[in-house]
Amino acid sequence: MVRAGFTLGELAEALQARLDGDPARVVVGVAPLDSAGPDEISFLTDPRYRDAARSSRAGALLVPADTADLPGALLRCVAPQQALIDLLRLFHPPAPAPAGVDRTAVVAADARVDPTAAVGPLSVVEAGAVIGPGVRLHALVHVGPGVEIGEATVVYPHVSLRDGVRVGRRVVIHAGAVLGADGFGFAFDGSAHRKIPQVGGVVIEDDVEIGANTTIDRATFGDTIIRRGTKIDNLVQIGHNVEVGAHSLLAAQVGVAGSSRLGRGVVLAGQVGVSHHATVGDGVVAGGQTGIRGEVEAGARIWGTPARPASELKRIVVAEGRLPELLRRVRALEQQLEQLAARLGDAGPAGGRGD
Amino acid sequence: MVRAGFTLGELAEALQARLDGDPARVVVGVAPLDSAGPDEISFLTDPRYRDAARSSRAGALLVPADTADLPGALLRCVAPQQALIDLLRLFHPPAPAPAGVDRTAVVAADARVDPTAAVGPLSVVEAGAVIGPGVRLHALVHVGPGVEIGEATVVYPHVSLRDGVRVGRRVVIHAGAVLGADGFGFAFDGSAHRKIPQVGGVVIEDDVEIGANTTIDRATFGDTIIRRGTKIDNLVQIGHNVEVGAHSLLAAQVGVAGSSRLGRGVVLAGQVGVSHHATVGDGVVAGGQTGIRGEVEAGARIWGTPARPASELKRIVVAEGRLPELLRRVRALEQQLEQLAARLGDAGPAGGRGD
Amino acid sequence: MVRAGFTLGELAEALQARLDGDPARVVVGVAPLDSAGPDEISFLTDPRYRDAARSSRAGALLVPADTADLPGALLRCVAPQQALIDLLRLFHPPAPAPAGVDRTAVVAADARVDPTAAVGPLSVVEAGAVIGPGVRLHALVHVGPGVEIGEATVVYPHVSLRDGVRVGRRVVIHAGAVLGADGFGFAFDGSAHRKIPQVGGVVIEDDVEIGANTTIDRATFGDTIIRRGTKIDNLVQIGHNVEVGAHSLLAAQVGVAGSSRLGRGVVLAGQVGVSHHATVGDGVVAGGQTGIRGEVEAGARIWGTPARPASELKRIVVAEGRLPELLRRVRALEQQLEQLAARLGDAGPAGGRGD
Repeated sequence: MVRAGFTLGELAEALQARLDGDPARVVVGVAPLDSAGPDEISFLTDPRYRDAARSSRAGALLVPADTADLPGALLRCVAPQQALIDLLRLFHPPAPAPAGVDRTAVVAADARVDPTAAVGPLSVVEAGAVIGPGVRLHALVHVGPGVEIGEATVVYPHVSLRDGVRVGRRVVIHAGAVLGADGFGFAFDGSAHRKIPQVGGVVIEDDVEIGANTTIDRATFGDTIIRRGTKIDNLVQIGHNVEVGAHSLLAAQVGVAGSSRLGRGVVLAGQVGVSHHATVGDGVVAGGQTGIRGEVEAGARIWGTPARPASELKRIVVAEGRLPELLRRVRALEQQLEQLAARLGDAGPAGGRGD
Repeated sequence: MVRAGFTLGELAEALQARLDGDPARVVVGVAPLDSAGPDEISFLTDPRYRDAARSSRAGALLVPADTADLPGALLRCVAPQQALIDLLRLFHPPAPAPAGVDRTAVVAADARVDPTAAVGPLSVVEAGAVIGPGVRLHALVHVGPGVEIGEATVVYPHVSLRDGVRVGRRVVIHAGAVLGADGFGFAFDGSAHRKIPQVGGVVIEDDVEIGANTTIDRATFGDTIIRRGTKIDNLVQIGHNVEVGAHSLLAAQVGVAGSSRLGRGVVLAGQVGVSHHATVGDGVVAGGQTGIRGEVEAGARIWGTPARPASELKRIVVAEGRLPELLRRVRALEQQLEQLAARLGDAGPAGGRGD
Repeated sequence: MVRAGFTLGELAEALQARLDGDPARVVVGVAPLDSAGPDEISFLTDPRYRDAARSSRAGALLVPADTADLPGALLRCVAPQQALIDLLRLFHPPAPAPAGVDRTAVVAADARVDPTAAVGPLSVVEAGAVIGPGVRLHALVHVGPGVEIGEATVVYPHVSLRDGVRVGRRVVIHAGAVLGADGFGFAFDGSAHRKIPQVGGVVIEDDVEIGANTTIDRATFGDTIIRRGTKIDNLVQIGHNVEVGAHSLLAAQVGVAGSSRLGRGVVLAGQVGVSHHATVGDGVVAGGQTGIRGEVEAGARIWGTPARPASELKRIVVAEGRLPELLRRVRALEQQLEQLAARLGDAGPAGGRGD
């Protein structure tokens, strides 16, 4: 939480923004529109908040390049959302990790820890592990035998990396995550479930982020794979032999059962479940709590259990709300038709009520 | 699990109960009706268990004040459920924590640990953290830089409190919970998801309880807030910038997505999901697995995905069970009507089958 | 990940298989059909993969006893799935744990650790705990006061076993699991939720497996019990006073609320929720995300929320897909009937539209 002051001129240059206002004015922090004070800079990245921007007390605003009719100092940016990220990084640079192995950490004699890596207090690095340059292991991390961690990866406290797990570069693994626990594989022998040894591994590619207390199981054979750039939220379960494609987003409490394949750029909202051996195409977007089985074609937008096209499910949801009424209407139709038939001197058409 | 013996007279006084029986009789423990023995006291807090009470071997019973027709020694209480809590606390006082910092804990030089606090074996307290009076940190806890923990709070093993998290007084945080991990915030720049720095915090007010392996993310800006007296079960996810109102109950595996607001006294049953930016009014009660979006008005009882009034959903559920039959009945009606129209010398009314 | 070479003759003997091929041929590993090379043995346990078996480059195949028409060396087995487990154990024997207490572990003076047990680096064993023969505690494990762990049980890093938890023999507890946290029990006193002391325990019988970051709460009174041979996946929640019968399978993210009873051989797919005080009979199989309340009779196959017989739910799901169409058809019927009645010189039958 380091804070520094910047002049608007410095910020305009750093963010490649066009400044309307005094380049010598200093701001000391970033804050949302409603809480920013005169010595802070705020931002308008969503046009719905124009009114809040107009009434904000912020000393300056980061805005889209074509914004009109806003008072005060403006930093006009072509990509304001990206500029906001840069702005936040300027004001909140990552805390420097003291390179080196904390004296209370326990590191196996044959583990290789790059001299620029940091190993935090009471962390354990087992035999044959390889910790790359600039890696930061926080306190109380467990790195199992033969684990490999690539450059500049950050591992938060209480993470467990089981034997042989391979983690790429610039990966972030949040507290309590478990990578490489045994896949859930058993075979019933007539009297008991016998454990199928899970002899595969886990591969996390570059730039992946893994949420707190998320679990990613090792494969039975081969590898469970999370492709590059994919972001996984908290308390997510990834079963054995799953492959999650690049640049996907898995929200909290999603579960993906064994041997399923997710494509590139897939977005699963919270609590979605994917059955085993399912195939989810590139760019699929699934609404919260969706239950996915079988195959989902690329680009589909799905919702519900079992998953349906979201637009179809919305119609069904509306119709369900009318279902009790519909039952009454059908009953009424049956009575009317019966009466009508009776009036016509008939006991009713052949075929009866169909049940 | 400390146990002591009490006379019924002592218990009647401590619980402000009226005693029917021998005040000198000693009981040495509390047990349910079906397992209590003659040297134990049991309890009848739910009238459905009257028969079990009558046949119980318990040496005494804690009962509602107006209970009639039960044999044996009775402790009559106006609020028997509350009296049971007091009774259990008498027989099971919390184990005294040895004040002081265990010699194997790692505490930063500038952290402030109250002399009456206990820091367990192999716990880590980082720079600038403040541990209040009577706090108990169990073994293997991680307290990040600048964390503040209020008086008499208990933190179980393997909890992670990231930098700057503020925890109130008399809070209980169960094993493996993670407070203050980064919120799940990314912005796609055309080729990759860029991380939006999560520079806010987490505030846990007084008397909150947080379940095992639950995760509560830090805010993007400002704070994620859990208001006083709220109880959260295991494996719950609370996203960034969420506010949970006072005295709410969130059962296991509930997920609340970013920026949602829950009112006071909200009750969410197990596996409920709340979408981002939702607003749940005071006193809302949601059944298991409910999926909540948008706004739910105060006092509503809801169920289902998407959430509906519970009474409406129950009718829909019944109607759904008749849906296959309903399809057959509509088909029959269409045939009958067609036949009737044909008999009347007509090819059918204008408008056809409507599809 | 120890690997050794075996001759096919040695394997045939060890697996009680009939060998078609050269008994002197050596294989050095086990791999799936599509990735196995000439120096590896593969397996055909599912007849759907016959084509893959035919085109596999594997040096030998483990197959069902009656397999015909496959080229190359074959190991014919009566129970190929079980033989595969044996085969994997031959090639991947568990890494030997160095018996003894790591010098960095913290073990209470009065804890009893069997001399053949291993206690890993930075693990904590509290007062009165009993660690049986051949037990392996990995690094950073927490064993609370009075915990008992039976012979040959394996406990992975960051597991928390709260006070008094009893674990049987040959149990596997994966990383980050929490056993014995307080059950979620509170009583509202008119102004706040007061905690009901949870004074019971947890009993894990022999041969149980518990997944990563799974939580099993202690009972209010008595014990939460997991019966022998049951396998529980990751991120599962088991509430207080639950009993799970023997040889059951609970997939990832299942939640079982307090005081529920599951029978023997129950199978719950991922994300299933069981309400409190439910009773699930022996052999029940529940599909993913099912919501179970009340009582489910033995042998039932159920799905959906609320749970229904799976076959019935499948019909409902199909019918739901036709619900918007059904609404239109009923509207059309009403119009046709009205027109018909009008043509017959009538304002419509008594009773109107039934609503």
